[in-house]
Amino acid sequence: MFSNSRTWTVEWGDCDPAGIVFYPRFFAAFDTSTSRLLEAATGMRKSEIIRSNEIIGWPMVETGARFLAPATYGDEMHIESCVTRVGRSSFAITHRMLRAGLLCIEASEVRVWTARRSGESHVISSVPLPESLAAKLRGDA
Amino acid sequence: MFSNSRTWTVEWGDCDPAGIVFYPRFFAAFDTSTSRLLEAATGMRKSEIIRSNEIIGWPMVETGARFLAPATYGDEMHIESCVTRVGRSSFAITHRMLRAGLLCIEASEVRVWTARRSGESHVISSVPLPESLAAKLRGDA
Amino acid sequence: MFSNSRTWTVEWGDCDPAGIVFYPRFFAAFDTSTSRLLEAATGMRKSEIIRSNEIIGWPMVETGARFLAPATYGDEMHIESCVTRVGRSSFAITHRMLRAGLLCIEASEVRVWTARRSGESHVISSVPLPESLAAKLRGDA
Amino acid sequence: MFSNSRTWTVEWGDCDPAGIVFYPRFFAAFDTSTSRLLEAATGMRKSEIIRSNEIIGWPMVETGARFLAPATYGDEMHIESCVTRVGRSSFAITHRMLRAGLLCIEASEVRVWTARRSGESHVISSVPLPESLAAKLRGDA
Repeated sequence: MFSNSRTWTVEWGDCDPAGIVFYPRFFAAFDTSTSRLLEAATGMRKSEIIRSNEIIGWPMVETGARFLAPATYGDEMHIESCVTRVGRSSFAITHRMLRAGLLCIEASEVRVWTARRSGESHVISSVPLPESLAAKLRGDA
Repeated sequence: MFSNSRTWTVEWGDCDPAGIVFYPRFFAAFDTSTSRLLEAATGMRKSEIIRSNEIIGWPMVETGARFLAPATYGDEMHIESCVTRVGRSSFAITHRMLRAGLLCIEASEVRVWTARRSGESHVISSVPLPESLAAKLRGDA
Repeated sequence: MFSNSRTWTVEWGDCDPAGIVFYPRFFAAFDTSTSRLLEAATGMRKSEIIRSNEIIGWPMVETGARFLAPATYGDEMHIESCVTRVGRSSFAITHRMLRAGLLCIEASEVRVWTARRSGESHVISSVPLPESLAAKLRGDA
Repeated sequence: MFSNSRTWTVEWGDCDPAGIVFYPRFFAAFDTSTSRLLEAATGMRKSEIIRSNEIIGWPMVETGARFLAPATYGDEMHIESCVTRVGRSSFAITHRMLRAGLLCIEASEVRVWTARRSGESHVISSVPLPESLAAKLRGDA
C-alpha cells in the first residue's frame, strides 16, 4: 500500500490555554498529510488533481483518533500516513504522529472521491476512483 | 445521563474551497459543545471549573466521527451532546449534529480530567473527577 | 451609513497558551461581522448574495486594528460594525469590539466586490457594487 | 535592524469557498514569522524565551495589512520579516509576503513584551525588553 511521511511543527496558534495542541488542529495536520500522500501518489498538486478529475476533493466520511501523549509549542512531529484500503470510490488511510520516536497519536480515516452531480451543482456525490490512482494507492503501480 | 444541546452556525471561514465545512472545524464545534455541557452540569464557566478544581482541563484521549451529510455556509446546526459513560477520571460523550432534523454527523469522545503534577508542572496526568460532578454527569444528581 | 452589531463569545480554541485570544481569531470574528452587516443590508444570506450577484465575495484589501484590552475564554464580546465609505466597487467598515462597555479593539477594513473574470475563471477582479446595495450601505435607502 | 525570512505553504484548510486564503490565516502566518524572528534573534525557542524571561509572550497591540494579490492552495509564500522600531517594552515589525517574487501582502505590527503582574496573575502588563534582546533587534549586537 502507498505511504508517505512529513514533518509538522506545532505553532503557538495551534495551542490552547492548557499549553497543549487544541485537538482539532491535529485533524488539520492529518488533512494536509492526506493531501501530501495523494500528491506524492499522482505527482500533481491537489488543485491539479481536482481540476483534471473534475472532482471537488475527497471529503472525510469517517475518522477516529487516539491521543496517547500531548504535544506542545515548538514540537516537531513526524507524521506517517499509509493507505490501508482502496475501494471503488473510497479509500482509507492511517496516520501515526510521533515526536522523537514516541507515538503521540494514531488516527484512521475514510475518504470518498467526490464530484458535483452534473445538472445539479449543489448536490455532491461519490464517483469512482480513477483506476490508475487506485492501483497506485494499492501499491500495484 | 446528563445531556445538553446548542445551535452552531457555519461561518465562511469554517468552509473550504469545495464550499463545505473543513472537517476539523466540526471538532472545534464539538469541543465547544462539551464545554457547554460541563458548564450546564456545574453552573460554572469553563475557566471557573478549571480554577476551582486546580485542573488544566479535560483533554481528548479518543474521538471518532461519521460524516453523513455535508454542511455549508450559513447552515444552522443543532448539536445534541449526551454523556454516555462516567469513569473514575474519564467520561464519554456523544454528539449528534443535525440540520433541519437531518442527522449530518455522529461523534463520540472520551475526555480525561487532567491536572499538572505537583512539583513537575510540565507533566500532566489524570486526576479523579469530583464525586459531585460525576453524579451530575451520571444523572444521579 | 449602515451599521449592524452582534455578540461573539470567545471559545477555548480561540485562545492561546497565554490564555488570551490568539489575535487572528479576532479577524475571523470581524469577517463574520461584515457578513452579518451585508446580510442585514440585503436581507439575503451571504451565499445568496454571492449567487445572485455572480461574485465570489468581498475579499479584504486593507485592514488595521488596535488591541486595547485582551479578551479571554468565555468573554461575551459586543461587536459594532459600521460602514464608513462606499466607493464604486469597494466599501470600508469599522468594527468596535467591547466587553461590558469597555472598548477592547478598534478595527477598520476595506473590501472589494469581486468576481471571476468571464473566460478567465482563475483571474478575479473588482466589479461595481450594485447601486441598490451601495445606496443601502450609504444609508440612503 | 534584525530581519528573518521563511517559507509558508498555503494549505487547503487555509482557503475559503472563494478558493483563496481566508485572510485571518495570513495573520496566523505572520504570527509564526514573528516567533521565528525572535527565535533567530535569541537562539531560543519561543517557549524558552517565555520561561527564561518570565513573560507570557508578546501580544499584538496594533497591526495593519494591505492585500495586493490573492494566494491560493499550494502557493509557496516567502515571508520577509524585519524589525523597524525597538522601544522600551514594544517593538515593531513589518512583514512582506511574496509569491515567486510578486509582493502579495505588506503588513506591519507592534508587539509588547508582556508579563503577569506579580500578586495579580489575572492582570497582564508591559515589561521592559531585556537590553541584550533590544540591542540584537536593533542590529547593534
